[in-house]
Amino acid sequence: MINWSTLSAAEQTAALARPAMADSAKLRATVADIITAVLERGDEAVLDFTRRFDSPELTTLPLSTEKRDELASRVTPQVQDAIQTAFNNVKQFHEAQYPQDIKLTTTPGVVCEQRFTALEAVGLYIPGGSAPLPSTVMMLGVPALVAGCERKVLCTPPNSAQEIAPEIAYAAKLCGIEEIYLCGGAQAIAAMAFGTQTITKVDKIFGPGNSFVTEAKQQVSQRADGAAIDMPAGPSEVLVLADNNADADFVASDLLSQAEHGPDSQAILVTNSEALINAVEAAVATQLAALSRNSIASKAMGNARYILTATVDEAIAVSNQYAPEHLIVQCDNARDLLPKIKHAGSIFLGPWSPESAGDYASGTNHVLPTYGYARNYSSLGLLDFMRRYTIQELSEDGMRNLGPAIMQLADAEGLDAHRNAVGYRMTKLQQND
Amino acid sequence: MINWSTLSAAEQTAALARPAMADSAKLRATVADIITAVLERGDEAVLDFTRRFDSPELTTLPLSTEKRDELASRVTPQVQDAIQTAFNNVKQFHEAQYPQDIKLTTTPGVVCEQRFTALEAVGLYIPGGSAPLPSTVMMLGVPALVAGCERKVLCTPPNSAQEIAPEIAYAAKLCGIEEIYLCGGAQAIAAMAFGTQTITKVDKIFGPGNSFVTEAKQQVSQRADGAAIDMPAGPSEVLVLADNNADADFVASDLLSQAEHGPDSQAILVTNSEALINAVEAAVATQLAALSRNSIASKAMGNARYILTATVDEAIAVSNQYAPEHLIVQCDNARDLLPKIKHAGSIFLGPWSPESAGDYASGTNHVLPTYGYARNYSSLGLLDFMRRYTIQELSEDGMRNLGPAIMQLADAEGLDAHRNAVGYRMTKLQQND
Ligand SMILES: [Zn+2]
Ligand SMILES: [Zn+2]
Repeated sequence: MINWSTLSAAEQTAALARPAMADSAKLRATVADIITAVLERGDEAVLDFTRRFDSPELTTLPLSTEKRDELASRVTPQVQDAIQTAFNNVKQFHEAQYPQDIKLTTTPGVVCEQRFTALEAVGLYIPGGSAPLPSTVMMLGVPALVAGCERKVLCTPPNSAQEIAPEIAYAAKLCGIEEIYLCGGAQAIAAMAFGTQTITKVDKIFGPGNSFVTEAKQQVSQRADGAAIDMPAGPSEVLVLADNNADADFVASDLLSQAEHGPDSQAILVTNSEALINAVEAAVATQLAALSRNSIASKAMGNARYILTATVDEAIAVSNQYAPEHLIVQCDNARDLLPKIKHAGSIFLGPWSPESAGDYASGTNHVLPTYGYARNYSSLGLLDFMRRYTIQELSEDGMRNLGPAIMQLADAEGLDAHRNAVGYRMTKLQQND
Repeated sequence: MINWSTLSAAEQTAALARPAMADSAKLRATVADIITAVLERGDEAVLDFTRRFDSPELTTLPLSTEKRDELASRVTPQVQDAIQTAFNNVKQFHEAQYPQDIKLTTTPGVVCEQRFTALEAVGLYIPGGSAPLPSTVMMLGVPALVAGCERKVLCTPPNSAQEIAPEIAYAAKLCGIEEIYLCGGAQAIAAMAFGTQTITKVDKIFGPGNSFVTEAKQQVSQRADGAAIDMPAGPSEVLVLADNNADADFVASDLLSQAEHGPDSQAILVTNSEALINAVEAAVATQLAALSRNSIASKAMGNARYILTATVDEAIAVSNQYAPEHLIVQCDNARDLLPKIKHAGSIFLGPWSPESAGDYASGTNHVLPTYGYARNYSSLGLLDFMRRYTIQELSEDGMRNLGPAIMQLADAEGLDAHRNAVGYRMTKLQQND
């Protein structure tokens, strides 16, 4: 237990420090080699890597729509219903985010517009691993669907039967994803960013992944011939802000939800109640023992922090300093605390709003800025699948009204041709008058 | 003159290729060294670099508000008026971009929200050089003002009198920028990204700059302890789309406006009229001779391209393939062509809308995606100075309604603790019933 007010500022900063992310020259070089191989040999390189790491018998990258639908039909009706429920909520919430175009006359005769348009082609990366992640398919696929992206490309590593999890196929079908490729890792990111014979290049790549995937996303986003990416990545994290009335079992299960994501997950409880800390520590011990991912969650809980503050306000200040990806507020009148909360990716209000609600089904997106990026990056949303551009149109009157100011400013900046571009037009208008 | 329809697809791609950006290991290393020096020695390093490159007598980084206002008062009334006119238009257009928060019930008892909030601290970089750039101060300062950013930090290299251009001071005053530091280059970017004794760290850095500045922005944006940046950079560019009725002097002056920005500027005319190409080439020769930045513009025009297409539609296809930063449409009924135009940072419609209108005063932002980034990045706007985050709140009924689907999905993904977080809550609700 960390007693916040007894710490110096430096100790407080240390208490909230995140583990350093491995900045491995070896990882960078390995990923750069994979990217080079995909640039040089295209499909063949992607297939080679995929046979080596995922699916030894794979001969072709695309998964047909027929195969997608056949796989989808293997999902049990109960899981189909649950995915459909989540899909409906996520879709509603992202539809509500649809932006308004703007058209404005700033000076008589000068019309300015801001328009939004869907990105043409988006790449959605879904990690493989022990359990399928249909929720991530929805978190990426639904906004792409709502935005109206022409091409939605999904890459995910195949299993040894050259197939993908039925739940992923089902969620992809709901999202109208027709381009599915059986590949994962840095090779999948490179294929989407640069294109191969089979996979046409995309404009932007979204989604979580292991260190190879996140390194590959960084590298392709640095290249003008590559692709944009959703946001920088870091280990997932939760901060639970709780007061004396919080239910220790609820808090413990929320910390453990975070912990079971991975051994590097960060789980932090900040509370003004020492009794709660004791009760949560006991509940964590009990609940942890029964988890199937016990060893992962145990490792993560080894880095868990229990921080005692003097007041709820001080607890909020701790949260603001940490800038958590997920912030769960289990305090009385949690909503009333919102005006004081400054930096968080997604906020879960009150006792009935566990992180798993947002992970799966409330409607909010579960792709969130982590590792302190909640200070300066947004939660994933519809706008990340769109692009803004502007338009201006001056009438003859608009030119008459604004021309003199433009010429004055061009003069001030020493740009003759900029001045002339107005000058020739003003002269012509005077000739016409 | 390039006759588009006679080219193979590969030749067409080559005809639209942008010059390779220097990917210099030396530049990367130099900038990394500057960043390290600023991290290690803070203000002292920034002052050293600034004395070496910009202002040999400089002893302190901040420019006081009094000094700002004194400098501002030196601006002539005519230029003050012009800056004020531009400020008003840019402010109106960015105010119109203010986003709406969203609050939605996705399932009875499940409330989801998306809120927008200003970034707390933004860094605005204004390049130095032969002419002052008050327009860039406004393009960065106005959205920061409208968004409501608490701290607006401006860095710009001082002259040998330890001062900045009066026009920059005047524009900064209009934008309510109170933190001005006398430094430029990679050292200014490092100071804003990591903080020094005098300059407190910012969350995101905006603005154009030379190769040191843009390399420094890339490097700090790759570090978790650094800062976010506005967008990747490349040489500025214009594509003029014109038909037979376009005025050759107007078109020439627009191409030259782009060309005078720098020797690496790209200027492209695409038209279905061979007569126009001939007339524009002649007009360029005449106008170019009289420009004060003749040598810069001449170099850039050496790379200008005049592309002849069979039809206006084909010309639009060329523009869509190029994805220009600035697209000037000097065709009959220019507005009617908008639905066919796919990728451009900012579009200038009709004969009376030169690029200089948007550069200075129409109201749109002149910070735009270049180098093909208009495919997947947005024009700078108010939203770049804000951050989106989400909130969810489930009532007891919300948990009853959505809990079963969440548990089903947690099961499908093999995440016990996620299931338990709902399970404990459902159990408690049943006990209460
Ligand atoms: Zn989770
Ligand atoms: Zn310009």
